[in-house]
Amino acid sequence: MTVIFALPGNEAMAQAIAGSLGATLGRLETRRFPDREAYVRLVDDVARKQVCFVCTLADPDAQIMRLLFAADAARDLGARSLTLVAPYLGYMRQDRRFLPGEAVTSRSFARLLSGSFDRLVTVSPHLHRYNSLAEIYSLDAIALDAAPLLAAWLIAHVERPILIGPDSESVQWVASVARLAGAPYAIGSKVRTGDRGVEVTLPSLAAHQGRRPVILDDVASSGVTLLSAAKALARAGFAKPIGLAVHGLQNEEDQDRILTATEALVTTDSIPNPCAQISLAAMIATAIAGHLGL
Amino acid sequence: MTVIFALPGNEAMAQAIAGSLGATLGRLETRRFPDREAYVRLVDDVARKQVCFVCTLADPDAQIMRLLFAADAARDLGARSLTLVAPYLGYMRQDRRFLPGEAVTSRSFARLLSGSFDRLVTVSPHLHRYNSLAEIYSLDAIALDAAPLLAAWLIAHVERPILIGPDSESVQWVASVARLAGAPYAIGSKVRTGDRGVEVTLPSLAAHQGRRPVILDDVASSGVTLLSAAKALARAGFAKPIGLAVHGLQNEEDQDRILTATEALVTTDSIPNPCAQISLAAMIATAIAGHLGL
Repeated sequence: MTVIFALPGNEAMAQAIAGSLGATLGRLETRRFPDREAYVRLVDDVARKQVCFVCTLADPDAQIMRLLFAADAARDLGARSLTLVAPYLGYMRQDRRFLPGEAVTSRSFARLLSGSFDRLVTVSPHLHRYNSLAEIYSLDAIALDAAPLLAAWLIAHVERPILIGPDSESVQWVASVARLAGAPYAIGSKVRTGDRGVEVTLPSLAAHQGRRPVILDDVASSGVTLLSAAKALARAGFAKPIGLAVHGLQNEEDQDRILTATEALVTTDSIPNPCAQISLAAMIATAIAGHLGL
Repeated sequence: MTVIFALPGNEAMAQAIAGSLGATLGRLETRRFPDREAYVRLVDDVARKQVCFVCTLADPDAQIMRLLFAADAARDLGARSLTLVAPYLGYMRQDRRFLPGEAVTSRSFARLLSGSFDRLVTVSPHLHRYNSLAEIYSLDAIALDAAPLLAAWLIAHVERPILIGPDSESVQWVASVARLAGAPYAIGSKVRTGDRGVEVTLPSLAAHQGRRPVILDDVASSGVTLLSAAKALARAGFAKPIGLAVHGLQNEEDQDRILTATEALVTTDSIPNPCAQISLAAMIATAIAGHLGL
């Protein structure tokens, strides 16, 4: 028996996964006491069940305590196994100590989650200096790849695309989507001048004139990378690009800024956001079914 | 060598403790990335040092990640020992499962902190069904008692007090302050009807007419207990009481409400708040000095 609980804000994803799996959606009650401490209750029984918690980990500090409390409660109440479904996995960027004394938050976060769950299912985590989640996660970490879904979206919606990766970090990722979509690609180079300051330069795109430019990134956030790449495209004589990202982490202001420089922004629904057009639930459900033997 | 770091909002307490100890105050840099993830850096060297982090744990969900990141960084950077100074310790109230499926958050929180620190120094934690922190904390837990400081404040500021404990939970605590202050006390009984609904009834106080009533509690929060006790005192013919609490967890609105029904509210500085008149730093510094062998 499998039961799936949604942490607050993850109800739609949990419902879709439960629907795909034919699993029960459990009732999770959470609230805040007047002193801001969290209250968590698993209303449905979890004893001897395979329990999944769906909790995307954007804005992770706001999510983590309720999530760990829910996991500990399920463990305590006799759950057979605990799976965390976090379509977006936070704290993957600080993967080393850039300045002396810095906290390597990716490791601490991995240790926390690994201490409470048996299994993590996530989608296209930001693996830069780490080769795999297993380098820092001691649980069974399953990193699904959104590339086929992004390629499928491109094939269905964009004629004659040219894919643009804004920086060298994106090359593997962009090459993979391009191959699956049967499209050419080009990789820019990015110089970062602060949390919100970047400068993207592109190679010559003369051979691709007339194609629809699609800027591809793993995360849409402040949008400054997208915007800088869009400017470089305009200078090269291209029309407004489409922005395509796995994870839509942009806030409303970011999004307005992105939409001034792009024809559209399209993301998966790993993080609920107005640009989420690509559904991950079926892929996640298939992975869960395989790993839980459903 | 000992170095003391203040998590954000705890600078005054850390400074006072460092001053008492003659210890170095370390520089801790924290900020939030645009995606709301935390950045933490210990600017000063911690290798082979006894490291103390000062972080009161009111609104614990907002504090915990930065605190754990800082601790992990210090451990990783070779700190000799890690002490958490949390003048107020959160998540002590849910000490059992009142309804089926509830998370016993006190245990999960204890496990988290015990996984990152060697030692915890706190003041008058809310021990109700637990007899001591050692029941749930596996680190070296040092619970200091604010009773002598509250008694000293009473002796200095209130002539002929009668101490009122609002409910049976408070009896040990009120009796201890009363004995130290050489004052009589009475214990009410409280019926709770929700997070913000309580009804306090008092025993006969006829023998104490003419004394200054002081309502004593471990935490000032919503103020509904204080207010209900104040009403019961008014019905018994007493003047407006003084509210005296160890931990001032009340927000601005709570405080305004409390101040309409009391002559004053006085707390320690375990949580920075406008009513914090009783300083804990010297007591905490003495405990740290004893335990770290300074």
